[in-house]
Amino acid sequence: MAQRARKAARELATLPTGVKNGALIGMARALEERSDDIIETNKLDIASARASGVSSAFLDRLTLNPARIEGMVQGLRQVASLADPVGEIISSRVRPNGLKVQRVRVPLGVIGIIYESRPNVTVDAAGLALKAGNAVILRGGSEAISSNVRLVQILCQASSKAGIPDHAVQLIETTDRQAVYELLKLDDYLEAIIPRGGPELIELVRKNSTVPVIAHGKGLCHIYVDEAADLRMALSIVLNAKVQRPGVCNALETLLVHQAITQEFLPQVCDRLSRAGVEVRGDRKVCQVVPQALEASEADWETEYLDLILAIKVVSSLDEALGHISQYGSGHSEAIVTSNQSNAKRFLQEIDAAAVYVNASTRFTDGGEFGLGAEMGISTQKLHARGPMGLQELTSYKYIIYGNGQVRG
Amino acid sequence: MAQRARKAARELATLPTGVKNGALIGMARALEERSDDIIETNKLDIASARASGVSSAFLDRLTLNPARIEGMVQGLRQVASLADPVGEIISSRVRPNGLKVQRVRVPLGVIGIIYESRPNVTVDAAGLALKAGNAVILRGGSEAISSNVRLVQILCQASSKAGIPDHAVQLIETTDRQAVYELLKLDDYLEAIIPRGGPELIELVRKNSTVPVIAHGKGLCHIYVDEAADLRMALSIVLNAKVQRPGVCNALETLLVHQAITQEFLPQVCDRLSRAGVEVRGDRKVCQVVPQALEASEADWETEYLDLILAIKVVSSLDEALGHISQYGSGHSEAIVTSNQSNAKRFLQEIDAAAVYVNASTRFTDGGEFGLGAEMGISTQKLHARGPMGLQELTSYKYIIYGNGQVRG
Repeated sequence: MAQRARKAARELATLPTGVKNGALIGMARALEERSDDIIETNKLDIASARASGVSSAFLDRLTLNPARIEGMVQGLRQVASLADPVGEIISSRVRPNGLKVQRVRVPLGVIGIIYESRPNVTVDAAGLALKAGNAVILRGGSEAISSNVRLVQILCQASSKAGIPDHAVQLIETTDRQAVYELLKLDDYLEAIIPRGGPELIELVRKNSTVPVIAHGKGLCHIYVDEAADLRMALSIVLNAKVQRPGVCNALETLLVHQAITQEFLPQVCDRLSRAGVEVRGDRKVCQVVPQALEASEADWETEYLDLILAIKVVSSLDEALGHISQYGSGHSEAIVTSNQSNAKRFLQEIDAAAVYVNASTRFTDGGEFGLGAEMGISTQKLHARGPMGLQELTSYKYIIYGNGQVRG
Repeated sequence: MAQRARKAARELATLPTGVKNGALIGMARALEERSDDIIETNKLDIASARASGVSSAFLDRLTLNPARIEGMVQGLRQVASLADPVGEIISSRVRPNGLKVQRVRVPLGVIGIIYESRPNVTVDAAGLALKAGNAVILRGGSEAISSNVRLVQILCQASSKAGIPDHAVQLIETTDRQAVYELLKLDDYLEAIIPRGGPELIELVRKNSTVPVIAHGKGLCHIYVDEAADLRMALSIVLNAKVQRPGVCNALETLLVHQAITQEFLPQVCDRLSRAGVEVRGDRKVCQVVPQALEASEADWETEYLDLILAIKVVSSLDEALGHISQYGSGHSEAIVTSNQSNAKRFLQEIDAAAVYVNASTRFTDGGEFGLGAEMGISTQKLHARGPMGLQELTSYKYIIYGNGQVRG
């Protein structure tokens, strides 16, 4: 598979933009036309997952419905509408000796993507990789295998008709874990591995990969409601970040509240959270103000629930909030709600995370919301790409140097 | 060491540009003032290395002399004169919902650098890392240990006086290899490991590191002299790329010559190479035209000599040259000498290397020559950075999002 991908990648690297866009639009149309078929196939995966007793958040991530298929279709069309990153001249300098040194954007080559339950990743990854001129080898979660096989079939038929080389998009169809270990050693063929999933997956990949890794790691996201916050705004942001889609990595997991506003804010927010079905686990101060809250343990500060559970802690200062986030945050998305500009500025400067917010929901950490088009994932490391990965983040560059006989003195 | 580095990195991240520049200038002055001391210390390393019978190219890389110290001093001054990359707003978008999404450049954090014999790397790495707001842990080659200890002492004294936190630059002073294995597992503290050295070192690092790696790998560089080349230009470029400094990664290792010009070009170039002390190893066609050439074996096409040896092969076409480079090249620097623009264009597009040249010596692949200031190394991989790594390549970014209560619908 990797050899075939490499061959495809060489052809993809010089493919005209029009051919790539035509393929993306064809792929979108094919998904639309085969929507019922995809949903029927997805039901097989849902039934098996339900039988094995997975969480409701897991089932939510696995589920495809007309709206989510339409989301994938729109994603592909949006990627088609974005500028082709390949060939962009990033910089151009003429040196004193007359050498013209250009930095030109090129595809990465072959990318491996290892992901868990969300089948929409299959489509987003294939579309973005194709537009950026890369071949991909996909390895989805075993729970979504029927959905993924069907999606890749549909995508490949459509892309092939549009002139995309065979093997540009390949799916590992075995669910045997040994295939992952083999993939991670293919540094002669793959330029990058992107793991998307829980901490165990990320650690397995980091420990075993000789291919460079861009990890889409966990999102243990915090919101700090400052003493100087607009509490109506804080309420709306906290509710949105926790309940709008709890099963995803940019959802809120721990709420930090300044002690000066506990009496006013905590009862309100906990009441609204409860009514939305959220279980609240608070530190002692929270439990004093909100009797129905459960007592949080140390493990709660370290847990990405991905479910309707929220840990809440009262802090005595911005410094304590910064310290808590520095200790427990996963470097994904962190927000402050405040009207105090100097507190906002300190938070933005001192928090070391991919996305740092003032007065907005952490749920916006997303390639589409940031204006990058569909996304390949959200990097929680600092190398190569950080935060949402769009087209640019799936490319590299080379230097092209034009001379007229220059030698080095 | 890693914990201390992390603490230093947090302070470095918000240090004003003026403090960093003052430190760099102080470090440069200290090296100038202690030049004799450094050269005397370096003699200890040279004597031990000579006693253990290393190659002349190795001794060359190990040697410090007044000119090379002046080179390091100028490097630090140039880095001081470059714009501070930290805090740069890379992009700024206002989204339809009013969110202002900025991408802001930030330091990586703590970087580990593992290198072999060249002690100037100690100074270049410390200077660049400091300017980009990073702490570094350096691990130089055991052969240069005395030189490196002295250099780091001098640099740290000077930087400390200028207000740089302690432990911003640290050197691993043991030459025990176990220290390298431990360093490679410190993914809780280090953001990146940059190995610079031979293929064994790179492989050891790739296989054992859980920290993301940016490899400064080998440079098996080719020059292809096309049928349509200006042969005087070709002669001058080939000689420069091979003999001006044979012990470095951007030096020429394999020359490819179009068959139509063998009779005219090969005797000339081999004569000039011989007079410069270069041993020529040619394929059968080369040996027919140049009787004094030794016969090349398969191993010669795969070898980075880093010495006064050159492999030469006759090719029947541009395609054969592209095929040979694709098979044996290391993705570092590749050049074509030609007056044929369409051949030049194909070479630039199809060669997959960090630096691709038309009509210039491969010796220019260097941060200084490309206008980046001093360099941290030359990446031979495609992730994060490719080719010479200057200041920008030692940074990451974060997204900063300003809202006024936005929630996701």
